[in-house]
Amino acid sequence: MRAVGLRASYRLNCRHLREALSVAGAIGREQTVEAPPGVGGDRLQARMLGRIERLEPERGGRWLARVAYPLDATTTELTQILNVAYGNVSLMDGVRLVRLELAPAVLRSLPGPRVGIRGIRSLARASARPLVSAAVKPIGLSSSGLARQAAAFARAGVDVVKDDHGLAVQGSAPFAERTRVIAEAVAGANAAVGGHTAYFPNLTGPLDTLEERLERVEALGLAGVVLCPSLMGLDALRRVAAGPRAPAIMAHPSHAQTAPGRAEGIAPDVLLGTLYRVAGADIVVYVNAGGRFAWPEETCHAINKRLREPLERHRRALPAPAGGVNAAEAGHWFGRYGPDTMLLIGGSLLVQRDLEGAARRLVEAALRWEG
Amino acid sequence: MRAVGLRASYRLNCRHLREALSVAGAIGREQTVEAPPGVGGDRLQARMLGRIERLEPERGGRWLARVAYPLDATTTELTQILNVAYGNVSLMDGVRLVRLELAPAVLRSLPGPRVGIRGIRSLARASARPLVSAAVKPIGLSSSGLARQAAAFARAGVDVVKDDHGLAVQGSAPFAERTRVIAEAVAGANAAVGGHTAYFPNLTGPLDTLEERLERVEALGLAGVVLCPSLMGLDALRRVAAGPRAPAIMAHPSHAQTAPGRAEGIAPDVLLGTLYRVAGADIVVYVNAGGRFAWPEETCHAINKRLREPLERHRRALPAPAGGVNAAEAGHWFGRYGPDTMLLIGGSLLVQRDLEGAARRLVEAALRWEG
Repeated sequence: MRAVGLRASYRLNCRHLREALSVAGAIGREQTVEAPPGVGGDRLQARMLGRIERLEPERGGRWLARVAYPLDATTTELTQILNVAYGNVSLMDGVRLVRLELAPAVLRSLPGPRVGIRGIRSLARASARPLVSAAVKPIGLSSSGLARQAAAFARAGVDVVKDDHGLAVQGSAPFAERTRVIAEAVAGANAAVGGHTAYFPNLTGPLDTLEERLERVEALGLAGVVLCPSLMGLDALRRVAAGPRAPAIMAHPSHAQTAPGRAEGIAPDVLLGTLYRVAGADIVVYVNAGGRFAWPEETCHAINKRLREPLERHRRALPAPAGGVNAAEAGHWFGRYGPDTMLLIGGSLLVQRDLEGAARRLVEAALRWEG
Repeated sequence: MRAVGLRASYRLNCRHLREALSVAGAIGREQTVEAPPGVGGDRLQARMLGRIERLEPERGGRWLARVAYPLDATTTELTQILNVAYGNVSLMDGVRLVRLELAPAVLRSLPGPRVGIRGIRSLARASARPLVSAAVKPIGLSSSGLARQAAAFARAGVDVVKDDHGLAVQGSAPFAERTRVIAEAVAGANAAVGGHTAYFPNLTGPLDTLEERLERVEALGLAGVVLCPSLMGLDALRRVAAGPRAPAIMAHPSHAQTAPGRAEGIAPDVLLGTLYRVAGADIVVYVNAGGRFAWPEETCHAINKRLREPLERHRRALPAPAGGVNAAEAGHWFGRYGPDTMLLIGGSLLVQRDLEGAARRLVEAALRWEG
């Protein structure tokens, strides 16, 4: 018996069983020994090759192949896990990673959410209701302009105010200045209204700045950050989450290169649900149905499920549907996704003249849930 | 006049001009201000929005849109450059990044190849001929088993012996042991035959191990490493290349999620040619035509062109076609791609009983070029 490190299910663009069998076998080889039969010895190959556990037809004349990879090949390192699950085959046509089951030994080695849904609820002093987040933007606005938005959101009682993920080191609002000015504005508004709004600055940037930015976040007393794992590398998320004084992390999907319905890539629920979560995201931002991107609601439910389902010792992570959500429809989405949801709104608040009033109506939609 | 940070050309799956115009405009907004008109003020938006510079029909009823983004939005940080060029739009259907032109200010801020083609030639004592590389594998083999392969390659005169990109921290050949044993074997073979084979160990792994592994590479006197930028994050490549004592870097495309002909993603020549190069790759491994992956030769030429074309002060990088190349066809490929090419061969050497003899024939194909 060899210990399994992970099971990956691939959707194959194959018409016939024989072709699917051949492609699945090629995948199990490509992702491990990456050499013809015999190289390294037959016993070694039998020990290391990905093994086809299941091959079943799907609607539309495609096949689903489940391949089990040995722990000896995957190890418990995230870069190698990703390499085995979807490394070289990411360069092949017609091979999509649609399911990923990580073995307990692998799951134990990954940080997972530091605080999880319960921790975010505790930050927000919200034990049962849905949560709301708002973004300060756009890039190009001054730190004080962004801080004015943040203060309005905080006075309205928004749970988390986040930097737009594009706020980097633009001269108009450089990291050090921006984080200080917004943190002060949010603290001031919290003090004025007795609120608990948290401010999450955007940590995404060069790896060499990571430590310094984390120290700054801690020095400012901020409880969380925004990070784009697919821009920085999934392991950068893991590293921040595994750090000794990790903040809560809201993961943003920029550059994730995932969408429903494609013949290649990683399915959204696997990447944003499973992988972002085990790597350490407490909150995962994704593309909501009915917004600027045409993702079906079914995909959103699938991501929610992965973020919230039991997974070894890992905490549950909070789904944050976003991407052109209309603030006026907040109640509808809370109804669809349930209270363990953080609705993230940007533009549809910022276009309104009375920003604080608009944000307050959003907060009220969340409070209404508690009855 | 606003300074441009980058120009990105997108292939849009649109039938009609009106639709293409609307999608291109939405992209220029999504990737910058990510908010409806008016938010932040009209003057700010005019300064920050991506601007459509060109819109032209392509064969097959698609459109090509060139969008210019201001330097104020892109900054010169690689994570933000990637975010602007292909961030949120990577979650949209029918939007493919097919060309990327980085402004001089951006190019100057990125390390590019540390040693480039000339430096690799100098390592290999090969001024004009094509170069050859061989991989030690498979995962699961012991360090001494891998070292025996490496010694045979070195005795045969292979220019670069590289770790298989899947060699991580497997118990059979952990990093510290493997690199020591293989480095010794290659040094021994070099001494015995008066050769100059370089050994490039695989640096890919957790970010926390990067410094330690780089120190080890330096302590062993190794001139180069293998790194998978798409597994570790493109910025990890930049960081290694920008370091004070950076080794030569062979970038491997595992998890690059690129292939010719798809409707989404980043075109292979843009990702593996332009982005890997400016981030610091001296050698770029890619999928050759006629191998295990069905990439057309036209794509290979396009990657070669990006790696070798003049690009500000950046050195030229060496293309390394790979992925099931038959060693017996080395001469053919040198003829197709020219002498500034490193053919990377793995399996087709390792299946042969007389490994050293097989590697020697490969080396002879490269030497023959010099006449």
